[in-house]
Amino acid sequence: MSALRAWYAKSHRPQLSLGTSLLSKSNFRLASTLPPRSTQFTKPTIDHVNHLRSILSSPASLLTTLDGSSTSGELDAFNSDWMGKYHGSSPLVLKPRSTSEVSEIMRYCNSRNLALVPQGGNTGLVGGSNPVYDEVILSLSNLNSVRSFDKVSGILVADAGVVLESADNYLAERGFIFPLDLGAKGSCQIGGNVAANAGGLRLLRYGSLRGSVLGLEVVLPDGTIWNGLSKLRKDNTGLDLKQLFIGSEGTLGIITAISILCPRRPLATNVAVFSLPSYEAVQAVYAEARSRLGEILSAFEFFDSGSYGFVKQHQAHNGGSKKVFETEGEFYCLIETGGSNAEHDEGKMTALLEHLMGNEMVLDGVLAQDETQIKELWSLREGITESIGKLGKVYKYDLSVPVEKMYGLVEIMRERLRERGLYKEDGSGIVIGVIGYGHMGDGNLHLNVVSKEWSDDVQQAIEPYVYELVAENSGSISAEHGLGIMKAPYISYSKSTESVEMMKRIKQMFDPKGLLNPYKYIV
Amino acid sequence: MSALRAWYAKSHRPQLSLGTSLLSKSNFRLASTLPPRSTQFTKPTIDHVNHLRSILSSPASLLTTLDGSSTSGELDAFNSDWMGKYHGSSPLVLKPRSTSEVSEIMRYCNSRNLALVPQGGNTGLVGGSNPVYDEVILSLSNLNSVRSFDKVSGILVADAGVVLESADNYLAERGFIFPLDLGAKGSCQIGGNVAANAGGLRLLRYGSLRGSVLGLEVVLPDGTIWNGLSKLRKDNTGLDLKQLFIGSEGTLGIITAISILCPRRPLATNVAVFSLPSYEAVQAVYAEARSRLGEILSAFEFFDSGSYGFVKQHQAHNGGSKKVFETEGEFYCLIETGGSNAEHDEGKMTALLEHLMGNEMVLDGVLAQDETQIKELWSLREGITESIGKLGKVYKYDLSVPVEKMYGLVEIMRERLRERGLYKEDGSGIVIGVIGYGHMGDGNLHLNVVSKEWSDDVQQAIEPYVYELVAENSGSISAEHGLGIMKAPYISYSKSTESVEMMKRIKQMFDPKGLLNPYKYIV
Repeated sequence: MSALRAWYAKSHRPQLSLGTSLLSKSNFRLASTLPPRSTQFTKPTIDHVNHLRSILSSPASLLTTLDGSSTSGELDAFNSDWMGKYHGSSPLVLKPRSTSEVSEIMRYCNSRNLALVPQGGNTGLVGGSNPVYDEVILSLSNLNSVRSFDKVSGILVADAGVVLESADNYLAERGFIFPLDLGAKGSCQIGGNVAANAGGLRLLRYGSLRGSVLGLEVVLPDGTIWNGLSKLRKDNTGLDLKQLFIGSEGTLGIITAISILCPRRPLATNVAVFSLPSYEAVQAVYAEARSRLGEILSAFEFFDSGSYGFVKQHQAHNGGSKKVFETEGEFYCLIETGGSNAEHDEGKMTALLEHLMGNEMVLDGVLAQDETQIKELWSLREGITESIGKLGKVYKYDLSVPVEKMYGLVEIMRERLRERGLYKEDGSGIVIGVIGYGHMGDGNLHLNVVSKEWSDDVQQAIEPYVYELVAENSGSISAEHGLGIMKAPYISYSKSTESVEMMKRIKQMFDPKGLLNPYKYIV
Repeated sequence: MSALRAWYAKSHRPQLSLGTSLLSKSNFRLASTLPPRSTQFTKPTIDHVNHLRSILSSPASLLTTLDGSSTSGELDAFNSDWMGKYHGSSPLVLKPRSTSEVSEIMRYCNSRNLALVPQGGNTGLVGGSNPVYDEVILSLSNLNSVRSFDKVSGILVADAGVVLESADNYLAERGFIFPLDLGAKGSCQIGGNVAANAGGLRLLRYGSLRGSVLGLEVVLPDGTIWNGLSKLRKDNTGLDLKQLFIGSEGTLGIITAISILCPRRPLATNVAVFSLPSYEAVQAVYAEARSRLGEILSAFEFFDSGSYGFVKQHQAHNGGSKKVFETEGEFYCLIETGGSNAEHDEGKMTALLEHLMGNEMVLDGVLAQDETQIKELWSLREGITESIGKLGKVYKYDLSVPVEKMYGLVEIMRERLRERGLYKEDGSGIVIGVIGYGHMGDGNLHLNVVSKEWSDDVQQAIEPYVYELVAENSGSISAEHGLGIMKAPYISYSKSTESVEMMKRIKQMFDPKGLLNPYKYIV
């Protein structure tokens, strides 16, 4: 079981093993769209280092290659993202130990026109948290204390650098749960989560961070400490300024602490998986599950037969796959409940299952009987990413579209690749699968094109067509990963000119010199 | 039962019967803090009327006294708030029938420097939705259609002028619930609710509108229609601009439509009331209820013995009160559940009751057996406002403070009034009660000082001391009612100079001429 859990955690990072050919392609495209280094920014020098060292209470809080005290190798982990896809060349990393140190750093950098990139756990997928050129890296890792927790209200106040898993463990000991969960939970930091407005696995149940986060402490580009660290669930005195910083990806200010409302931890978990004849059937089951499971529904994931086929193929390759369904289908869904009473929750889940089977809304269904089976059933959904990564090169798109239109995008893309002779059902084309899976409840589709090899023909058949499709369906080209440097050039596919203009004006208002996390987000 | 329900609806508006002495006092104080009419704004003329009439598709969409086609009496309901506390003197009301009409109105008013106040159901409590002087009134009442509802995702898209109760009824027929409920639901409009970021009775369960609202359509002060009417639950492509308009009280733009995520409607409701020995016991029971009822807890209200005493006194006056508790206490709490399975929910509620009684966490408890009893128990909490209104003159404060400090404010205020000889337990002072009740789960305290008559001594003993107390406890002087014109001068008790300065800069960015809902909010 612990091996399964460890594999599960790793399965969120399979891109690491996808080889360098995708990465170099991405870099190639990026190079052509990357803005040049701004001449407005000062290059960090030894004089800056000396002054910044005087600000910091600990000598260990500064790493630099400028005076030879650190090697560039020691700065690599800060300069590159964890996928090894994006690389900066900063000579200077600062790891302040207090909000006031962050403030003094910001004030100084602002006065010297030193550009700066804030960095949490550096687990992002869009190159948002590492430098592009020589921006000073400001790591929040040393701001890592829980400041307070109130077990009556469930309100946690904690430094930005607290690791998500640590926060969740802290809460678990007290019977509470952090309203966000991610594959990267062991490394990502809660301040970075808020700065990125991370979505994750608990959104269906606990909603977005915009509803959970009660307050923020933010250091503004000029060094001002903005104390918006409210512990109030209700406060209607003026604009809710913290919302500007949530999801701003570190471009408006540095989040140094958060206040967040945490729910009670569920005491019981149930998982069932169903096979279904059509996407319409998935939608009908989703509606039924929402109705019958109501308040205990905690996840509703779907995947298509193509996805399941790859999982079975991968399992077979690894020594055999268990037969799960008597009758397989075109689609599958996984339903999870989390509630406060095991008997009640099982009753609801069993009743749902009987209703779905009795009314022939599903082809077959399996209800997990214990923790091991829960993990086995989850592995059917969570195993997709690893399976396709092992069996081919994967063009991955993380899209948000209205639920009813979600799978249509997969079908359109499959047909397009078929028409171009790239995809053939018998496996003789370069593309061996065009599959879809994702978070049904959130309208979050993972469209994946599995190819025998990296190919310009395939890529050009997909992009920018996939973004156009998303735009036509009023969707989002980034459901939960943000813009960073990867998607910054493509924001117009999801946002109007008026919206982008408003965003630019707000950026200009907060950061007139544009020093904070430059070249990214809204450019 | 229907009589009870009607009374319940009325009980949210008891201030109407509080007499004119409070109102004239408020006006008196307001007069001294009210900014003068801005000379930057053009006075509406018959030429403006003629042009605006040409914009509107229906002659009935324009009411004006300028050409004698309407009397000032016909404009009274638009010029005054429903409490009769705030009065403007606009000669012109516009009731556009489409977003494009709103846009043309805004463009024209902007070009002519005509100030303008947006008005929904005009049910606010802070004078935010009626004119102060001669601002043009833009009523959203004729924008009242549901645009779409998706029963898979639960996403409702509707015009701003849809009445909250109509929206909820529409959803109820489809098995869904609007994630907001208010006493004023029969009149207030969903656009106004979002503009005010209304809190209400369902916040504990469904969270704030900031998490539920998915998108907005807004007409900006220059007439631009900003289409932010997303139906996406997840979208991380840039700043979440809609958050600026939520709670901006119509000062940044006119909300013309909303997109909102609606949960499934609970199928079962249970209500219990407990008597308790102390506020600490209330907090302990709240923690226990959160733990044991978890996902089905839909309300946790508390009130003190003073509140309950007034309710009993009022009931006795009206022909006898039922004995509810064998053992009364210093405090009471009402717990409501809403879930998808009646049997399960009753089981949880009964188990909680047995645990609380068995462990002597409460003095006594009553579980409603049917719908009539549910309403009777709710009337103990909901009857407070009417009871004290009948038995004295009430100084009312709607405050938000951390839950653990909530009741301390009542005790401090009671002691202060006792020290000044204004409050005496034996009823011989001018103040006959200093009581507290409210939404425990939201940290929302209703502090009420019940006086035999209106008195400068009493008012001066309370204000601005009560705001200072709130400020010392990092609270909010307006938990859910907003600022409007009533609390605009007091924002500094809840927000820092830096915050107010940021808000002013954002207002300047969106509305450089300051034409939209002037004299209010952030002044």
